[in-house]
Amino acid sequence: MRNNDKDMRRETELTSDRLEGRNAVLEAINAGREINKIWILDPKDGKKLDPTLMKILKETSERKIVTVRCRRDVLDRMSQTHNHQGVIASVASHEYTDIDDILKKAEEEGHAPLLIVLDELKDAYNLGSVLRIADSAGVDGVVIPKHRSIGLDSAVAKASAGAIEYVPVARVTNIAQTLRELKDRNGFWVCGTAAEGSIPYDTADYKGPLAIVIGSEGDGMRDSVRKECDFLISIPMAGKVNSLNAAVACGIIVFEAVKGRK
Amino acid sequence: MRNNDKDMRRETELTSDRLEGRNAVLEAINAGREINKIWILDPKDGKKLDPTLMKILKETSERKIVTVRCRRDVLDRMSQTHNHQGVIASVASHEYTDIDDILKKAEEEGHAPLLIVLDELKDAYNLGSVLRIADSAGVDGVVIPKHRSIGLDSAVAKASAGAIEYVPVARVTNIAQTLRELKDRNGFWVCGTAAEGSIPYDTADYKGPLAIVIGSEGDGMRDSVRKECDFLISIPMAGKVNSLNAAVACGIIVFEAVKGRK
Repeated sequence: MRNNDKDMRRETELTSDRLEGRNAVLEAINAGREINKIWILDPKDGKKLDPTLMKILKETSERKIVTVRCRRDVLDRMSQTHNHQGVIASVASHEYTDIDDILKKAEEEGHAPLLIVLDELKDAYNLGSVLRIADSAGVDGVVIPKHRSIGLDSAVAKASAGAIEYVPVARVTNIAQTLRELKDRNGFWVCGTAAEGSIPYDTADYKGPLAIVIGSEGDGMRDSVRKECDFLISIPMAGKVNSLNAAVACGIIVFEAVKGRK
Repeated sequence: MRNNDKDMRRETELTSDRLEGRNAVLEAINAGREINKIWILDPKDGKKLDPTLMKILKETSERKIVTVRCRRDVLDRMSQTHNHQGVIASVASHEYTDIDDILKKAEEEGHAPLLIVLDELKDAYNLGSVLRIADSAGVDGVVIPKHRSIGLDSAVAKASAGAIEYVPVARVTNIAQTLRELKDRNGFWVCGTAAEGSIPYDTADYKGPLAIVIGSEGDGMRDSVRKECDFLISIPMAGKVNSLNAAVACGIIVFEAVKGRK
């Protein structure tokens, strides 16, 4: 018993390479990600598992992934997101990409690059939602700052519903400087989003190499980042509070931009 | 000490009428909501409070709202969202509205009503985000089912950043039946959203009295609800996972609809 407890403690210390939730784990397997081990719910007395858990079990068996069947309370104790949905995986850490690699890939594919730049986003749920937007809209990559920002952890992986496996994310020391370099070296247009933006989001020109900058949840873009924007767009509002969640605003603008780039 | 603990326990049992977070509390005050009491951070040794907390203190003083200054650890213990930002308010419970009242108000204002209908949304953060969308886009009201759905609790209030104070929410027993009545009695069009929807969201006709139905996070719309839809729209996807967060999808579609209704 004491030994078990120790094992559990050791397992739960591995925070950076943990995936939780059915879709997150299944997408990691499907994307060919290196998986160390999977803990999955052991159905009692022949009670049937959820279909997605069944699919995961089939994949782990075919791919010879080490799989531990365990009770719900064991998963509950291991869980960091408190929403494991019956499966937890220990995987190789999520790796960041270089911006240059993102740009090179877009060039090889023969299209002008489109980036989402997140200025100090703090919330795992929001970053996960933005990765889903980037995947769904065919955005080439997401750029986040190294400091004062949420990174690619297990809560983000879960909120991303698997999109984290496919969307390249670059982490940079200085967002303002990165935007300047994208403009000077790579001919980018930098589109900022702000309540006071003078261009309605559905009339802006989104063509060419483009970086769409989304500010943080509470404070929006910092002044140093705003200064690097070629133009500022806004979403016309008709209410009393007039404030959208950062990921929702990102989705509205990015899908409008994708339409405009066609 | 023992007495204090008892008081605290009593306070934390009042789950349905608790607001936490600076913007949520300030918006409740500004919206003229009935407030029983406010607990607010007591700054130590003249250390300055955050500007929004200062604004709240000014309002509570002017409006003679009972205000208790307390230590951070007291607020931490009271907090249900674990993110009180220095202020918690006990308020009259959030009230639901009748759909008929929502329709009457739209008629008085002289415009065709626009509703967001949420089929079994489970996540407080998503419902809060949808209320922000409804407020920002000028939607007339939000409809949720009584069962198997998140309701208007303090976590939703916080995630709504105050929009909960302004957006009428109606709670109905049977979503499918409600949609049928809206069509038969009120001449509504019911627009469903689904991955296999045949109409791209940016080509649909959003004019007239309209209900936009958003499915639950994992499973989308139920069959019984889907059957009541006059048409099904989808957001064209270009990725691998191709799944958007429910609130993000709602934002993209509702803002497109609002443009189309002008």
